[in-house]
Amino acid sequence: MPEDFVVTPWEVTGEVDYDELMRRFGTQAVDDALMARIKKHTGDLHPLLERGLFFSHRDMNWILDEYEKGNKFALYTGRGPSSGIHIGHMVPWIFTRWLQEKFRVPLWFQITDDEKFWFRDFEKLEESNKIAYDNILDLIAIGFDPKLTKIFIDTEYIRHLYPLAAQIAKRVTFSTAKAVFGFDESFNIGQIFYTALQSVPCFLPSVDAGKNVPVLIPCGIDQDPHFRVTRDLAERLGYYKPAGLYNKLMPGLLGLQSKMSTSRPETAIFATDTEKAMRKKIANAFTGGRASVEEQRRLGANPDICSVFAYYTYLFAPKDDYLADVERTCRSGERLCGDCKKELADHVAKFLATHQERREKARDRIEEFVIRD
Amino acid sequence: MPEDFVVTPWEVTGEVDYDELMRRFGTQAVDDALMARIKKHTGDLHPLLERGLFFSHRDMNWILDEYEKGNKFALYTGRGPSSGIHIGHMVPWIFTRWLQEKFRVPLWFQITDDEKFWFRDFEKLEESNKIAYDNILDLIAIGFDPKLTKIFIDTEYIRHLYPLAAQIAKRVTFSTAKAVFGFDESFNIGQIFYTALQSVPCFLPSVDAGKNVPVLIPCGIDQDPHFRVTRDLAERLGYYKPAGLYNKLMPGLLGLQSKMSTSRPETAIFATDTEKAMRKKIANAFTGGRASVEEQRRLGANPDICSVFAYYTYLFAPKDDYLADVERTCRSGERLCGDCKKELADHVAKFLATHQERREKARDRIEEFVIRD
Repeated sequence: MPEDFVVTPWEVTGEVDYDELMRRFGTQAVDDALMARIKKHTGDLHPLLERGLFFSHRDMNWILDEYEKGNKFALYTGRGPSSGIHIGHMVPWIFTRWLQEKFRVPLWFQITDDEKFWFRDFEKLEESNKIAYDNILDLIAIGFDPKLTKIFIDTEYIRHLYPLAAQIAKRVTFSTAKAVFGFDESFNIGQIFYTALQSVPCFLPSVDAGKNVPVLIPCGIDQDPHFRVTRDLAERLGYYKPAGLYNKLMPGLLGLQSKMSTSRPETAIFATDTEKAMRKKIANAFTGGRASVEEQRRLGANPDICSVFAYYTYLFAPKDDYLADVERTCRSGERLCGDCKKELADHVAKFLATHQERREKARDRIEEFVIRD
Repeated sequence: MPEDFVVTPWEVTGEVDYDELMRRFGTQAVDDALMARIKKHTGDLHPLLERGLFFSHRDMNWILDEYEKGNKFALYTGRGPSSGIHIGHMVPWIFTRWLQEKFRVPLWFQITDDEKFWFRDFEKLEESNKIAYDNILDLIAIGFDPKLTKIFIDTEYIRHLYPLAAQIAKRVTFSTAKAVFGFDESFNIGQIFYTALQSVPCFLPSVDAGKNVPVLIPCGIDQDPHFRVTRDLAERLGYYKPAGLYNKLMPGLLGLQSKMSTSRPETAIFATDTEKAMRKKIANAFTGGRASVEEQRRLGANPDICSVFAYYTYLFAPKDDYLADVERTCRSGERLCGDCKKELADHVAKFLATHQERREKARDRIEEFVIRD
């Protein structure tokens, strides 16, 4: 078993073995039966689910049991505002939007400016708060239903978060936080306290409704440690344990083991990238291509190790037959990497143009979504 | 040097050697020169100061330097709402009121319902919040000037406290909290975070005024560890270090080394005690009396070990010649403990009657004092 990777909410290093990660975290695989059950309600399956990118869950069957009894769930996900938004950040949001649309359920979206202030090299809290408002533009551009969506920033909504956070914090020791997150004594007391804040929205829909509401969290699996802590104490506080539906972390442009990183802009496509910058990044992306055109025509290329193919798979080939065609022509050598990159860049250009237009319009829509009082 | 006592904000055990405590904490003694300097501004000296009960300080001379330059300080003190108020709790409040009256300065009064929820055996946050409102009645009854006094409860005023607490928390490691407060890994993450909250009002008057305001904290010396942490980071955040004026901890009724304890009502006189209950407690108090009346008449008694005499000294003999007379007649044997206790109980009865009347009236005055938005 490979033990040479680390996944926490603040650190992903090494080559992640997702089967091993599920074993470590104790989460379940999304299997065909679960997909069929979801499809019964949604009519179709989102490619991110069908293609195994939302691959793991906790208690998803219980969420559907309750839903089938008429007990609707609330969605909860969030964003740590440390930088501009890249496409990797959007993966769970796009999927969450799909869930919201199909199940017609409310979404509570937490923006953790306190967290990023504590964990990043920000001198002032205002820095992460400013980024929060910039990130909200991208969030609104994703197309959430304003009637079903509440976005809140920790420091601005704290009046409603802190009493719940206090109750959670009382039931988490440093010893637990150390074991779950790998903290040591050099961590600051904000970082140590923070997990209490990330637990709060698991219970907030219940407090808001005055009765227990199931909560489903679609997010990257790196966030699961927080919710493991939450689940351990939920029933003692009188609430349901939150359920989770977890995605794999979308690879960066420099290879499947590479990560998208704000400090290395060439690794990711950002929501505000110009078309020119985006095309250059994709042109420089790592592929499964051969050393020469001649060799590639003869032997075919390898999509299994290709960042560009991953981008098709995650977001830019929603139709299965199209994706299959990309894969087939790649393996056969009919498709060359340069052409394939240009084709992807054309899709991304359309996506960014639409996103950026919606993003500009979102500037006037913030108050439709953000709750403060 | 006695090393067999412990003083933290949450634990006082053993026989406290206050000179040694000042050495450990690094605070200064209140000396004659400082008292003379204070008297220059106040006209007279409060008995708690003159009698060495407010015995130690940090930067009190700087507070007066600034005051003399026209840069008025703000007062900050607080209450952890864990129980009903006893006379020991009132000592720093009575003194703070005197400072407010003499210097005409604002008071920020913090009620830490989050702290007591985290550190006490409360199941629900509502429990400490409810006690908070009960304690506020006693606080108002002390006679603070409503125009110069802002009382705030942590969970209710958190919108204004949390951004500052976040900035403080970022600069305090678990390692520091462990060293200063004696925490270990079994402490909950609320307890570990809490000191950030207690630091906030050291800077709140500056945030409120939009310019740096000196802050003076009159309180029991057991609270100094919090402000040691605050002082270490104040300048990095761009604020003045808070100054402190610290009192000794008033002894309980069962001897000078005894403590007032809510779980043992016979150790303390509570703000809401009936006259009958109060008289019974004083009748049972530990004194420096002799085994028999005959012996006491012959040898005199010892006020130096007497809880009853401590009550006279702290609050119930404001006139020096009267206190001197009590002491003289005690030592000479003219005064017997039974009579002396009755005399004290008469003073306390008057104090309680006035306090309880004001306390009832305070029920309609809460909104004059409490800030929430």
